[in-house]
Amino acid sequence: MSRRLVIAVDGVGGDAGPEPVLEAVRTGPPDVDLLLVGPEAELRERLGAVPEHVRLVDARDAVGMGDDPVSATWGKRRSSLLVAAEAVRNGQADAMVTPGNSGAAVLAAAVRLRRVPGVRNLALATTLRGPGLGPTVLLDIGATVVAQPEWLVEFAVMGAEFAKARLGVPRPRIGLVSNGTEALKGGPAQRDAHLLLATLPGYAGQIEAYDVFGDRVDVAVTDGFTGDVMLKMYERTLDLTAQVAVDAVAGAAGKRAVSAAVRAALAADRGGVLLGVGGVCVVCHGAAPARDLAEAIALAADCVRADVTGRIAAAFGGARRAAREEALL
Amino acid sequence: MSRRLVIAVDGVGGDAGPEPVLEAVRTGPPDVDLLLVGPEAELRERLGAVPEHVRLVDARDAVGMGDDPVSATWGKRRSSLLVAAEAVRNGQADAMVTPGNSGAAVLAAAVRLRRVPGVRNLALATTLRGPGLGPTVLLDIGATVVAQPEWLVEFAVMGAEFAKARLGVPRPRIGLVSNGTEALKGGPAQRDAHLLLATLPGYAGQIEAYDVFGDRVDVAVTDGFTGDVMLKMYERTLDLTAQVAVDAVAGAAGKRAVSAAVRAALAADRGGVLLGVGGVCVVCHGAAPARDLAEAIALAADCVRADVTGRIAAAFGGARRAAREEALL
Repeated sequence: MSRRLVIAVDGVGGDAGPEPVLEAVRTGPPDVDLLLVGPEAELRERLGAVPEHVRLVDARDAVGMGDDPVSATWGKRRSSLLVAAEAVRNGQADAMVTPGNSGAAVLAAAVRLRRVPGVRNLALATTLRGPGLGPTVLLDIGATVVAQPEWLVEFAVMGAEFAKARLGVPRPRIGLVSNGTEALKGGPAQRDAHLLLATLPGYAGQIEAYDVFGDRVDVAVTDGFTGDVMLKMYERTLDLTAQVAVDAVAGAAGKRAVSAAVRAALAADRGGVLLGVGGVCVVCHGAAPARDLAEAIALAADCVRADVTGRIAAAFGGARRAAREEALL
Repeated sequence: MSRRLVIAVDGVGGDAGPEPVLEAVRTGPPDVDLLLVGPEAELRERLGAVPEHVRLVDARDAVGMGDDPVSATWGKRRSSLLVAAEAVRNGQADAMVTPGNSGAAVLAAAVRLRRVPGVRNLALATTLRGPGLGPTVLLDIGATVVAQPEWLVEFAVMGAEFAKARLGVPRPRIGLVSNGTEALKGGPAQRDAHLLLATLPGYAGQIEAYDVFGDRVDVAVTDGFTGDVMLKMYERTLDLTAQVAVDAVAGAAGKRAVSAAVRAALAADRGGVLLGVGGVCVVCHGAAPARDLAEAIALAADCVRADVTGRIAAAFGGARRAAREEALL
């Protein structure tokens, strides 16, 4: 029997403070152990009885949602984010999950877990699903706000490994998010990236935002600015539409059925998986409720089991070996 | 009594050919006259009896959805797009509506209707609505794919005039689409635009994509690439969520109620209004069904009645006079 995985959870929390995290820790996936990282005395008091699968790890500094990521990372050396990342680096935990300041989370992971050799920039990946449609990995959703065209090629390689490892897609088709599918579409950044991506196995050309739901591609690549905007449009439109639909249905059972159907058919990942660092780090929404945080913990465990980090390292190692061999010819 | 408005409608059509346009012409808003522009013999035959409020105008060339806008504009001088724009310029029509190639439509309008003096770049504006939330004008949704920061200031001015004229908002609050609301958010393009926009009355700072639904701003400004991606994420997520909700409801009446509620509460404009040219031009989706095209014709008429073009010209004229006076000091 394989050993139980250990997930380090940032207990300082998101927009609503630690309560949703504590609720997720109390009721979350029973098949993993948890390190709850944060101000120990406070968390112990709020948590009440500490469940058997939970261990508290003290971290006295807290990074707020409005803190500047760079100052927070260098100024708060005992922040829950850095302590959680250290736990992963030291092998005390297999992965980390945080609903905190996402810029600071990315930086903490980059600093403590290091980049995978060959990766210059990190990307946060999420998986979108539509009714009856295959899942699509969308990255970057916010780790690297402005991306050079070459960086998008790295994101494409990481996204493809993620799709292979986590979704079991043997040969992922990769699309570049643009404003149309013709080669003439996009601005200079998209056109340059399009030419660079053309050398990549599985590249299927430029796609429209529509195509992140559909069967055209398995991986949709974009810069962190565009990905952030796409994901937020998706989340807000989904929530508003579901709310209007639920309100229009008579009867509690009907309302519940609509709500459940929307969640089942259109369930996106409840966190972004940070790709390109030497360990698994899942960054949730600051406003994530306990249920989403519990799903994010399960997502982190899935990524460990699927060896997402190892597969990305292997893909970049192979590319670096090939480049070295080519240089020797 | 004011005279009836005349709207020139591109009869060559979108993805599905002229049939949705003809259906919209047959059943569309009864309070405007229409010029149906396209290959006259063919349109007359397909239309059957020509309704009293419709007049056919011959245009032998057709611009296809896949045509390059520049070659189409200069190579097809009798295209339905150019002929429709000429009808507006010559005063035969008050506005034009097309479901055709949007790049070619923008160029046809720019060439034949000219830019409003002082406007360097054009923007397509749409209006999004959420349940119980005030409408928000989103621009640019695709006329100017890559936008310099100064151009976004022009878009903000045009968007504000559009919100005043069409939505009756006396002092529109303007937001810059970014990946967060703090000043540090965005890439260099957003940060530069943020500084330039700060001098504009009504500027409320950077916004997240979430805020296009909400009461934080009345106008959301972005480049045409980002706006295209936002609108398509919105459209696809709305359609998929509504479909899942309708499928989850038992009974035809319940399904109809959900469908109608979603359409009523989340109705976006059925076309983009091209701002910055000397006349009203509404560009619809290539896949727009007849009902949407009829709404786009009504939208075009509304924009004429609200004098959107005149108000934008006045705003830019005032700015130019102020700049001249300042230069004289």
